[in-house]
Amino acid sequence: MSRRRDQARRSVLIQVQSENSSYELYDYCSQFGKVQEMHHYKIGDNLSFILIEFNLLSDVEAINSASTHIQVDQNLPVTSPFLWFRVVPNRVRKDFVDKDIPLKVINANVASAPDDMNMLLFKAESVSDQMTLLHNATKLNETGTRLRFLSARQIELCLSGMFSEVTVLPFGSSVNGCGKLGSDLDLVLQMHPHLKENVQSRLVYYTKASSNPDRAQTQKVMEIIANIIDHFLPGISSVKKILHARVPIIKFNQTLTNLECDLSMSNTTSIYMSELLYLYGELDWRVRPLIFTVRSWARYMKLTNNYPGHWITNFSLTLLVLFYLQQKQILPSLQKLIELADKNDVRIADGDVNCTFLRDISKLPQASSRNEDDLETLLTDFFIYYSNFDFTTKSISLNAGMPLPKPAESTVYIHNPFEPGLNVAKNINTQEMERLKIEARNAAWLFCSAADNNANDWGLLSLFNQKIELNVKPIRLNHTNRMVELTALFSKSKTVDGVEKHSKYTQSANANSNTVNHSVDKQRISSKKKKSNQKQEFRR
Amino acid sequence: MSRRRDQARRSVLIQVQSENSSYELYDYCSQFGKVQEMHHYKIGDNLSFILIEFNLLSDVEAINSASTHIQVDQNLPVTSPFLWFRVVPNRVRKDFVDKDIPLKVINANVASAPDDMNMLLFKAESVSDQMTLLHNATKLNETGTRLRFLSARQIELCLSGMFSEVTVLPFGSSVNGCGKLGSDLDLVLQMHPHLKENVQSRLVYYTKASSNPDRAQTQKVMEIIANIIDHFLPGISSVKKILHARVPIIKFNQTLTNLECDLSMSNTTSIYMSELLYLYGELDWRVRPLIFTVRSWARYMKLTNNYPGHWITNFSLTLLVLFYLQQKQILPSLQKLIELADKNDVRIADGDVNCTFLRDISKLPQASSRNEDDLETLLTDFFIYYSNFDFTTKSISLNAGMPLPKPAESTVYIHNPFEPGLNVAKNINTQEMERLKIEARNAAWLFCSAADNNANDWGLLSLFNQKIELNVKPIRLNHTNRMVELTALFSKSKTVDGVEKHSKYTQSANANSNTVNHSVDKQRISSKKKKSNQKQEFRR
Repeated sequence: MSRRRDQARRSVLIQVQSENSSYELYDYCSQFGKVQEMHHYKIGDNLSFILIEFNLLSDVEAINSASTHIQVDQNLPVTSPFLWFRVVPNRVRKDFVDKDIPLKVINANVASAPDDMNMLLFKAESVSDQMTLLHNATKLNETGTRLRFLSARQIELCLSGMFSEVTVLPFGSSVNGCGKLGSDLDLVLQMHPHLKENVQSRLVYYTKASSNPDRAQTQKVMEIIANIIDHFLPGISSVKKILHARVPIIKFNQTLTNLECDLSMSNTTSIYMSELLYLYGELDWRVRPLIFTVRSWARYMKLTNNYPGHWITNFSLTLLVLFYLQQKQILPSLQKLIELADKNDVRIADGDVNCTFLRDISKLPQASSRNEDDLETLLTDFFIYYSNFDFTTKSISLNAGMPLPKPAESTVYIHNPFEPGLNVAKNINTQEMERLKIEARNAAWLFCSAADNNANDWGLLSLFNQKIELNVKPIRLNHTNRMVELTALFSKSKTVDGVEKHSKYTQSANANSNTVNHSVDKQRISSKKKKSNQKQEFRR
Repeated sequence: MSRRRDQARRSVLIQVQSENSSYELYDYCSQFGKVQEMHHYKIGDNLSFILIEFNLLSDVEAINSASTHIQVDQNLPVTSPFLWFRVVPNRVRKDFVDKDIPLKVINANVASAPDDMNMLLFKAESVSDQMTLLHNATKLNETGTRLRFLSARQIELCLSGMFSEVTVLPFGSSVNGCGKLGSDLDLVLQMHPHLKENVQSRLVYYTKASSNPDRAQTQKVMEIIANIIDHFLPGISSVKKILHARVPIIKFNQTLTNLECDLSMSNTTSIYMSELLYLYGELDWRVRPLIFTVRSWARYMKLTNNYPGHWITNFSLTLLVLFYLQQKQILPSLQKLIELADKNDVRIADGDVNCTFLRDISKLPQASSRNEDDLETLLTDFFIYYSNFDFTTKSISLNAGMPLPKPAESTVYIHNPFEPGLNVAKNINTQEMERLKIEARNAAWLFCSAADNNANDWGLLSLFNQKIELNVKPIRLNHTNRMVELTALFSKSKTVDGVEKHSKYTQSANANSNTVNHSVDKQRISSKKKKSNQKQEFRR
């Protein structure tokens, strides 16, 4: 987090004509400081940007001093890290061929899954490969992460004259390791990161006496900040103030970084929640691909959508995945992480919420017996686990790392990890819970009946209900056997045993020169799956 | 100006229990940097403040880092140069006796004329002494000037995150050398002091595209800034947005510096006008006492008041005094100052208004024959001059330094020095012009008939219609003769000759121990007046 914020402070974003400007831009910027990295990306077909990281903060200050405002009588001369590189008449064209510039990436994808995602999935070796591929192709990448921190920096910078300690931090999917390309940017604005006063200090800042209660004050402050960013900050548009929600937010688009943003205040638990999810993601390489696949499935099945309602949220889904992985002995309980915390891990958020847990995962003792299931096995088992889960009497507790008796009436009960008395999934109604279970059962069934798959929607494609258009119907050989017994899906037996899956199939299609993108000319090679014994215990 | 702004950047204002805290405060602050100067003042009977100037900007940064916010969950943690010095329990009381601290002034008067102003005037030696005394006791002093620049700095600082080049400059009476204690603080906010773009720079700041026309944009920006200062900035209260005036302004009180402020934008000619008035004030020591006296007279006679209307403004009155002094060969015409300007003096304000004139008065050639009239003579002559001025056909032009034919219909026409096509006194109606002339005539009459003065309202007291309450009626001896022939007042003769005034009087009163403030126990010593030949030419 602090590395990323520091990076953002040393970065500027510069609009250019195209990636070909990078040599000239590098040459120009190098007068002012040492260019560390350059990232190029596009918005639409026409807008090209280069994000430049400098070596030192003073390099950025030098760049700022050397940059100009134009038409100051018409435009508000706002200072921000967003610039454009103008063409000057009669400039000498230098020959930059073979010049070694630190352009890390050209045309970075910062927006959404690649257009040919389905074809990529189709070409994969196995479901596990598909999951890895889906994760790698849709997860937030380096350039995308930098743009998020730079967007936060813009807001922070503009308020720094009033609130010298102000911080604007990305939280949620942008930083928890589960972020997708194109996902919204959640930001939390803290006027002052240290709640504690310095009792040693005899000099106290004068502040404004406020007659408003806290909430009204927050709403008023957010209204003013919304007006500031709406009218002053370049690139920001469509500012909406949603100040009467439980957590008041300001929504806006930052068109230069192509991000939809939600800015809130006094939301420090969210920051620690992001840390927790990040840490769980770091503990095992299978965590994030599994989360990505489950979220994609839920979106395709319309179990989730972008609006709040009685359906499950991505956050709740993520907790379901983590909880499931705790049952598989892949992830430790939060209680375990809390027990291992030392004094450097102590974090108390607004409202005295204790967010203390072990941050340094190297201090986590190695489990004696590791679960070595592959991604496909874990995914299938995930669907089976939740299609059988007794939501009516059990609650999901990441703290305990096992199901607990439900503490209160609610269709689904997922304990908030930091405030176990709060239910993260309170919004879900019976109908949505039933849909979730049915779709999980269908998904499990799909993998069981994989033998019947058509070639153009095998594996995840089938799970997502996506078909590839092929000119020639591919031939699949050696279809896989059923992965699980059907009985496992429809009974509440305590133990579900997976059976060996022989996913030996090859597939080929003739290339058609007119439809190169859709042609498939690759031999699929069978992949051996290790036998996995899946055991699910419902602890009572 | 830049020296004052730099001083403000190195200053903080600290509320203390009383001036006795200065030793302890000095001791405490000296840990963080070198204290250059300390100024103490009070607001009302209870609020004590010490303004501290540090040696370096980094000292203030150190002070800021060492200062604390309290109750951050309730108060907005705004950073500003306004602090308070809290008492800590169990502190060790040090002995500060004889410690040499740079406390320049204790209980500086920053608000208004002293309570015993009339008594001070009463005790003066002569009308000229009264004028000097009035000027010295009511002019803006060092502490007051510093507070004005610090108040400007507060606004500037809070916007500096958005607009890195923003400047908030005092203008008008706070800086033109004609400022009175307690006068309003006029501020002009410039987003960017350099209107010209840097054509060499290839990097251009992104700015917000504005669909608004200029004026609507300025109003919107000022509305947002008004909300910022209203809600965030400590000490600021009673914010009023007057955005539909010809020059939109934000009015507010800064209660910590005890100032009523008017903030405007895009008002650069005002800054240069302040420079011009300042420069005229520097050219001769008699300029400012004369302006102060004329303004006080106008206020007492209700020729001016705090609200805009058909009456003459202080600014117009000031121009009348300067113009009159041009007629007396004491001040040069603006045309002369423009002719002497070199390339460093070139200033072009918003709207291409040329505000170029000589800034370095040492380059002004010495006049061969100096007018050496004393203040009393100049004052009397001022009244005579304007009671006879032909406002119906003549206009006042400081550029020409002489009356010009009136270019347009208007009761009174005073050319704006920088935009001679504009009439500064357009607002004055016939009735107010007549009142002005009548009161000027009465004032001249009063000095002519000074022989009849009562002891308790002699000189300026009489002019201001103020009487001293005395326990013992003082005895005046050797009353002055008439200063001017009465015919001079009531005829439009081209020449007015003053006659010798023998203002030889002595006055004494017994002190009464119960009314020390009102007792007079001083021998007035007659002051010789030089014979002055007053000659007024009406150039046609």
